[in-house]
Amino acid sequence: MIPLPDPPESIRLADGNDPLAGLRGRFLLPPGVIYLDGNSLGALPKATPERLRRAIEDEWGGDLIASWNKHDWIGAPARIGGKIAQLIGAKPSEVVVADSTSVNLFKLLVAALRAQGDRRVILTEPDNFPTDGYIAEGVVGLFDGCARKTAPAAELEAAIGDDTAVVVLTHVHYKTGQRWDMARVNEVARRRGALVVWDLSHSAGAIPVDLAGSRAELAVGCGYKYLNGGPGAPSYLYVAERLQSQMASPLSGWMGHAAPFAFEPVYQPATGIDRFLCGTPPILSLLALETAVDLMLEADLAAVAAKAEALSELLIAEMAPLCAAHGFTLITPRRFADRGAHVAFAHPHAYEICQALIAEGVVGDFRAPDVLRLGPAPLYTSFSDIWRAVRTLEQVMRLRLWDRPDYRTRARVT
Amino acid sequence: MIPLPDPPESIRLADGNDPLAGLRGRFLLPPGVIYLDGNSLGALPKATPERLRRAIEDEWGGDLIASWNKHDWIGAPARIGGKIAQLIGAKPSEVVVADSTSVNLFKLLVAALRAQGDRRVILTEPDNFPTDGYIAEGVVGLFDGCARKTAPAAELEAAIGDDTAVVVLTHVHYKTGQRWDMARVNEVARRRGALVVWDLSHSAGAIPVDLAGSRAELAVGCGYKYLNGGPGAPSYLYVAERLQSQMASPLSGWMGHAAPFAFEPVYQPATGIDRFLCGTPPILSLLALETAVDLMLEADLAAVAAKAEALSELLIAEMAPLCAAHGFTLITPRRFADRGAHVAFAHPHAYEICQALIAEGVVGDFRAPDVLRLGPAPLYTSFSDIWRAVRTLEQVMRLRLWDRPDYRTRARVT
Repeated sequence: MIPLPDPPESIRLADGNDPLAGLRGRFLLPPGVIYLDGNSLGALPKATPERLRRAIEDEWGGDLIASWNKHDWIGAPARIGGKIAQLIGAKPSEVVVADSTSVNLFKLLVAALRAQGDRRVILTEPDNFPTDGYIAEGVVGLFDGCARKTAPAAELEAAIGDDTAVVVLTHVHYKTGQRWDMARVNEVARRRGALVVWDLSHSAGAIPVDLAGSRAELAVGCGYKYLNGGPGAPSYLYVAERLQSQMASPLSGWMGHAAPFAFEPVYQPATGIDRFLCGTPPILSLLALETAVDLMLEADLAAVAAKAEALSELLIAEMAPLCAAHGFTLITPRRFADRGAHVAFAHPHAYEICQALIAEGVVGDFRAPDVLRLGPAPLYTSFSDIWRAVRTLEQVMRLRLWDRPDYRTRARVT
Repeated sequence: MIPLPDPPESIRLADGNDPLAGLRGRFLLPPGVIYLDGNSLGALPKATPERLRRAIEDEWGGDLIASWNKHDWIGAPARIGGKIAQLIGAKPSEVVVADSTSVNLFKLLVAALRAQGDRRVILTEPDNFPTDGYIAEGVVGLFDGCARKTAPAAELEAAIGDDTAVVVLTHVHYKTGQRWDMARVNEVARRRGALVVWDLSHSAGAIPVDLAGSRAELAVGCGYKYLNGGPGAPSYLYVAERLQSQMASPLSGWMGHAAPFAFEPVYQPATGIDRFLCGTPPILSLLALETAVDLMLEADLAAVAAKAEALSELLIAEMAPLCAAHGFTLITPRRFADRGAHVAFAHPHAYEICQALIAEGVVGDFRAPDVLRLGPAPLYTSFSDIWRAVRTLEQVMRLRLWDRPDYRTRARVT
């Protein structure tokens, strides 16, 4: 790592006054690394290794099949869903953990299309998170006359029409960080008879999400980003209570049955949110997610949002001189109300710069074609981290470390 | 536990001559328990806790996002699929690990229906594993004019007709243990233009499965039964190489894209088996599965099959006097070629008997309405286990332990 002076008084003061500072010590962060990629894979809570050791050795190893009841593995999807509900302004009966975000989006899009009768358009942004678009393509292929249409963000509300069955949007854009006004889009869609599925992957756990307050009807989200559930942690889905009885999952597996262990020959969906479960859930990954959600629930969510704002404001302010001197362009909205926790900068050499930064111990990530994405995580990123990260980037640019042959020629596979 | 004498010489000799006896010590089995439910949740390999500790602390905790490449998390679905391929007579390029068995069955049924043009019937057994039937119902609901039809096992081959798109069968029946002649069904179906999806959940890892030798085209299977991958371990799916380019997954998530990290706006499926991946896989659960599959690959598969036969033969023979004296009826086929590794007995008080057995340290399971299922696992069940389990059951029946009020009134929720 590049040697750096101590952060100035103002930065140390910000850390000293941070009500969430104590939570940083609850994560196992590797020494010598400033991790600004928690929006891609959240850090490891200290409690997780021991929780998983117990799950593996004591529960699976010791109690074997009896663990499904004795340790309530069978209740884990609803129980953890109920905890995540507290993070996103939902009722416990409206959220369940299952499968991956892509699979959950598939369930909700198919259910929404069916509930919408003759309406046959799935509307989204052209630049939405690609897998959400791919899943929409897959769904469109299953229904005659169904189409996926896109409209740029600025024109999206106007594009919600009489043929729109469902709008699918990422609450915070994975690349630019642009945040939708959820209440407003829901209101426009409702007036025009369309449903909206929100992907909360880049917002929940970092910035305020209020599904009830914004009258959201459908949502999915990711367990392994700001929720810190571990690599590929199971996803969650939300269906507003008033809609649940009208929404049928096409993935009608036994865990979504009204009586999974009755082994009845005909499928009868559970009455509540459990109808969106499908197969047997991956318990080890689920329990890692639960440990992380429990930790997040210890934090005051208003403090989390305030810190997300303060960290990203600091990052944008500290980066301003580098934008001017080294050709970075801020592509994230300037107002916090319009963005998430991460901040993105375009630069023609973003890929090589990102690699050089990582080599110097500052982990952000690159998104094609030219974006450097830096994601502070309010639970464990300090103000000093931001200050040091920008100083390191400054040195990378000043010393042209990114222009070393090994960065220029490295394959783009991250 | 009920005190028992030592097993007779013949049983001790069988254990002494067991070429797989050394593998038992590679599992963490709870003391004082005879576990005959590995067909529901396989036992814990001793190597798993340390592998998961490394995955959690060193990989996730230490290397964070870099682990996707550095520890080849990204290659895990194909890598583990390639290992499972060795257990089921497939090529490494024909198997991938992903999602749950139910989700994988959904992918293959939809892909098969689409590949089959005007044929619109999914044919199965009325008494097939319920979740497979539920998933078939879900698929049928997506296609106009599509129907799920059932035919009893004895009439199934004759029921494969010109309208049959795909037959879905469990290679070994979850309850009765009846084994299909896979090569024969595949041959009949092929002659009549139908595809067959095999569910290998109750066969792979215990009895011989030869997908190539029996010219199978499509299969799914479970990671947490005989494969010992842990509770809710991810599932695998198989598509014969010659079919892969014609089969499209409706769950077109980014991991199945030809270039997942290019973030292209349009879905382009991967050329090979990877096109059946969907979302980000649950890495912790995946790596537990890999550890268990690695252990199974240390065993000679012919010895595994021979031991499955010998254990189940011993169980049937030892149970014969109890059938006569205490009203058990063997519902599993008598010839090994016609059954799997587990053995099932009908009894009017099967539920209470199962509970009493468990209380006495012998863990089998109950399947509605009246079946006691005992599942030896060739990798860790000994011949002495079988002998002791039957002696314990004999005492349960002789002392009418099952008739104690707490067993009679216990709710049926296992």
